[in-house]
Amino acid sequence: MSRMKEFRFIEIASRIFERRKREVIAGAGDDDCAVIKIGDQYLILTTDNLHEKADFPESMSPYEMGHMAVAVNFSDLAGTGAKPEYFLFDITIREGIDEGFFVQILKGIEDLAKKYDAEVVGGDIDFGDELYITGFAAGIARKPALQSGARTGDRVYITGVTGKAELSLEQLFSGKKREEIPFISSLFTPEPKIWEGIEISEYASAMTDISDSLAISLHNISRKSGVKIVLKEEYFPLTELTELVSYGRALELFLYGGGDFELVFTSEESDRGIMIGEVMDGSGVFIEKRSGIEEVDFRGYSHF
Amino acid sequence: MSRMKEFRFIEIASRIFERRKREVIAGAGDDDCAVIKIGDQYLILTTDNLHEKADFPESMSPYEMGHMAVAVNFSDLAGTGAKPEYFLFDITIREGIDEGFFVQILKGIEDLAKKYDAEVVGGDIDFGDELYITGFAAGIARKPALQSGARTGDRVYITGVTGKAELSLEQLFSGKKREEIPFISSLFTPEPKIWEGIEISEYASAMTDISDSLAISLHNISRKSGVKIVLKEEYFPLTELTELVSYGRALELFLYGGGDFELVFTSEESDRGIMIGEVMDGSGVFIEKRSGIEEVDFRGYSHF
Repeated sequence: MSRMKEFRFIEIASRIFERRKREVIAGAGDDDCAVIKIGDQYLILTTDNLHEKADFPESMSPYEMGHMAVAVNFSDLAGTGAKPEYFLFDITIREGIDEGFFVQILKGIEDLAKKYDAEVVGGDIDFGDELYITGFAAGIARKPALQSGARTGDRVYITGVTGKAELSLEQLFSGKKREEIPFISSLFTPEPKIWEGIEISEYASAMTDISDSLAISLHNISRKSGVKIVLKEEYFPLTELTELVSYGRALELFLYGGGDFELVFTSEESDRGIMIGEVMDGSGVFIEKRSGIEEVDFRGYSHF
Repeated sequence: MSRMKEFRFIEIASRIFERRKREVIAGAGDDDCAVIKIGDQYLILTTDNLHEKADFPESMSPYEMGHMAVAVNFSDLAGTGAKPEYFLFDITIREGIDEGFFVQILKGIEDLAKKYDAEVVGGDIDFGDELYITGFAAGIARKPALQSGARTGDRVYITGVTGKAELSLEQLFSGKKREEIPFISSLFTPEPKIWEGIEISEYASAMTDISDSLAISLHNISRKSGVKIVLKEEYFPLTELTELVSYGRALELFLYGGGDFELVFTSEESDRGIMIGEVMDGSGVFIEKRSGIEEVDFRGYSHF
């Protein structure tokens, strides 16, 4: 079903839940994660749900499914500048999933959690018609970066090239084997940008992870910060993509491809990341091309 | 699928996840919830997953589904003595669920969270073949009660009569209408014993909520505490049940019925709750009847 329908339902949800606690800096629908002030630190909570038909390509191993369930949640934490601490999961097992398969999912979960010194502290297991893995992550941030802090005069940066996951998915669908696909790890074992997120959160005015598409993440920052974002096409790092596809296709993948686990942030200045545009007074997201200024659509396409 | 298969998979899971953090007092598979020491308090985390075919009777309203998704998680918190603070959800929507239905689920979630002064701080929405509601709850406890603390000489107490939810389910299946079923609220809008749990945790040696059955909760306490539990049939509060079913059936429902949201705890003494037995040296769970001592099976039956 459409991503737009999902956004519509998220919008409905954000109107129903009351903000009641002063320590909740960001809650349902406000940002990547819930941000809760506790003493001089912040407890960061997030949840993300994956299911077989929409999120796991046929050739994905159960170990990679477990990895992915942690990665999508940790990427939300990364987008807020949080260090992952605790992870819980719910797995719905369907007929045909044996103990060996199940163990591999859990190992994928455990290994990625361990890599970032987080601990798997709970889980629930059910049986149903489709394989689901829902994750819940709790992290700690010293200085959380929200989507709402971008200011006129800031520049816009990304931590890496987007579009690789989408391109890999296309290549997989076109019949290529996993081992023939150059950026296959961005599709099967994406790495959440945890350390980058923590470092960048120290000075970024706004930050978020890119899961649906760069375009959608930028629209979120623009809307929540009340600013205009203008990208410069000439800054775009497209060479890795144009080695494999046409320039036009590379541009499309870069802006609208989903599934990458990079971060996008705004800051007056940054030694880290790739500068792709700037923040101005106004609203909306635009791209400055040789041919003139164009609007960037609010769309992405990550699920299959 | 069988509850036993679920326990088997939970056992596998508990062997895979490493304990690495000193502040994690109880983790995956150890107790009702994860218990994490933070300063002089404890952060309590839990997750529970409901899905339509197994957990929602046909006549359950969407508002009640939302209520239930919060209640199952808050009951885990109650069983540890925690005050609920934050709640997150993942909802998988299927074809045929419209906005009105969805809004009612969310209102059920919001209202029960609000009742215990907890805040709904996040959520994720997906589309699939079956309606799923996964909940994550975070709470705070001053003195968490684990399943592992029961000591020889303690007495065993419950906060209320178990078996009502199962009986109501049976009556529903036998063709009775909702309004004809006396304990229907225990099936459709069970109330987690939050305030009781917090008060009892101040002095209980062990505590847990009763979701699968009284028998299973007692077996968990017995195994994790390394003690024998001996129930006395003469103490059992069965009159509410025997007004509706035979004595034998009432006894069966009381011990093995699932879906009640009561607490069971052990303590040297308690003004609260109904005393049903005692803790002794040894292992296993037994019941002392007029006719002699019998073992209590490790079984429950809550899902339909």
